[in-house]
Amino acid sequence: MERRAVVLLSGGLDSSVAAAKAVSDGYAIYAMTFLYGQSHSREVESARRVAEFLGAKDHVMVELPPFLFSSSALLGGAEIPTGRNADEIPRGEIPSTYVPARNIVFLSVASAWAENLQAEAVYIGVNALDYSGYPDCRPEFIEAFREVLRRGTKAGVGGRPLKIIAPLIGMSKAEIVRLGHSLGLDFSLTWSCYRGGERACGVCDSCRLRIKGFKEAGLKDPLPYEVEVDWGEAGEG
Amino acid sequence: MERRAVVLLSGGLDSSVAAAKAVSDGYAIYAMTFLYGQSHSREVESARRVAEFLGAKDHVMVELPPFLFSSSALLGGAEIPTGRNADEIPRGEIPSTYVPARNIVFLSVASAWAENLQAEAVYIGVNALDYSGYPDCRPEFIEAFREVLRRGTKAGVGGRPLKIIAPLIGMSKAEIVRLGHSLGLDFSLTWSCYRGGERACGVCDSCRLRIKGFKEAGLKDPLPYEVEVDWGEAGEG
Repeated sequence: MERRAVVLLSGGLDSSVAAAKAVSDGYAIYAMTFLYGQSHSREVESARRVAEFLGAKDHVMVELPPFLFSSSALLGGAEIPTGRNADEIPRGEIPSTYVPARNIVFLSVASAWAENLQAEAVYIGVNALDYSGYPDCRPEFIEAFREVLRRGTKAGVGGRPLKIIAPLIGMSKAEIVRLGHSLGLDFSLTWSCYRGGERACGVCDSCRLRIKGFKEAGLKDPLPYEVEVDWGEAGEG
Repeated sequence: MERRAVVLLSGGLDSSVAAAKAVSDGYAIYAMTFLYGQSHSREVESARRVAEFLGAKDHVMVELPPFLFSSSALLGGAEIPTGRNADEIPRGEIPSTYVPARNIVFLSVASAWAENLQAEAVYIGVNALDYSGYPDCRPEFIEAFREVLRRGTKAGVGGRPLKIIAPLIGMSKAEIVRLGHSLGLDFSLTWSCYRGGERACGVCDSCRLRIKGFKEAGLKDPLPYEVEVDWGEAGEG
């Protein structure tokens, strides 16, 4: 039987690279994307394209009621911060784009589906280095969640708990870009911008981190940006 | 400001007693009921009535896609066991009515809503004594989930994690019935039967445990049953 993995796929850079990693690790991937009242659907469309590009066996959308997360800036509860350089994003501070218990919910629902599919693993593209303000992106959170699966599921009690694989957790954005590049991921299918235009805004925290990652990796991002980006040597030719 | 608690309310006996306990503990309660392809809506109607009876400030229904849990007998994936006495239900064996990662999903979604509402606690009516086959009804699971909240949420990292309160976890069914009775809960509003008729079937595991609980508590269940039940002394008068 095929080895199955459920992949949490938002359509962003990180989750897309994590999904590509699952494929290269030999898994038949089952992608799961959450709809929870995000202000734009651009990312969801990206998730669809990435899942197709990676040959996912199935791709499900799970709709959650927007009231669950409504205090977050991502859902209109506060201002999305823009205009700061990646270096200026405060470390150790929880950003206004924090979404309450989001990865706990995502991992839980993915784990339920995985147990049903008899999948071996769930992949999640969290990373703790850049943007470390989110508590649910840290290794100690992932480890605590693994313990929940060991104690709270049939597979866990049976000694074969579902694996939670967070391949990017210790990587910088540049390393993530390099990994995606080496796995042949088409970055033009992914979307990171907090806003949902035709082109990425280039100034929100998420765009800034992405651009910095590509630059440090010595690569040019194939995504079109609203603002002019100096890609340095990578942009030449 | 009112002290708020989110209450996981299925409309069954246990969750209804847990909700009544939250009220008596001084909380303004916010009830959450999940719809996930259960074969009958009788229990959901009971949840609605119990929430109203207890004066819930809000009652939300969260719909989850049925494919998440589809291997469970509760969703038609296997036969619902019937016809055994409560004493004959095997201990330590995970029943076919096990729903993969269900309480992990329920607690996660409730926690997200709770963090958003700035609630202090989530109440869940799990109990580990009777029907101890479910891994996600045990104290060690609840404790692991608390650790996830301590590490993975803003409130937790800030040193004031959401409380997960499982007031029934060490109680027998009889003790749960007695507690509900002492709190003035109207048991006729609740529903425990795995089937969804006009009357409770009286023979499924869930009915058998409920009946046994009432008998041991010396009380007569006000719910109508398909089969004749000998309530002993409690049924007289």
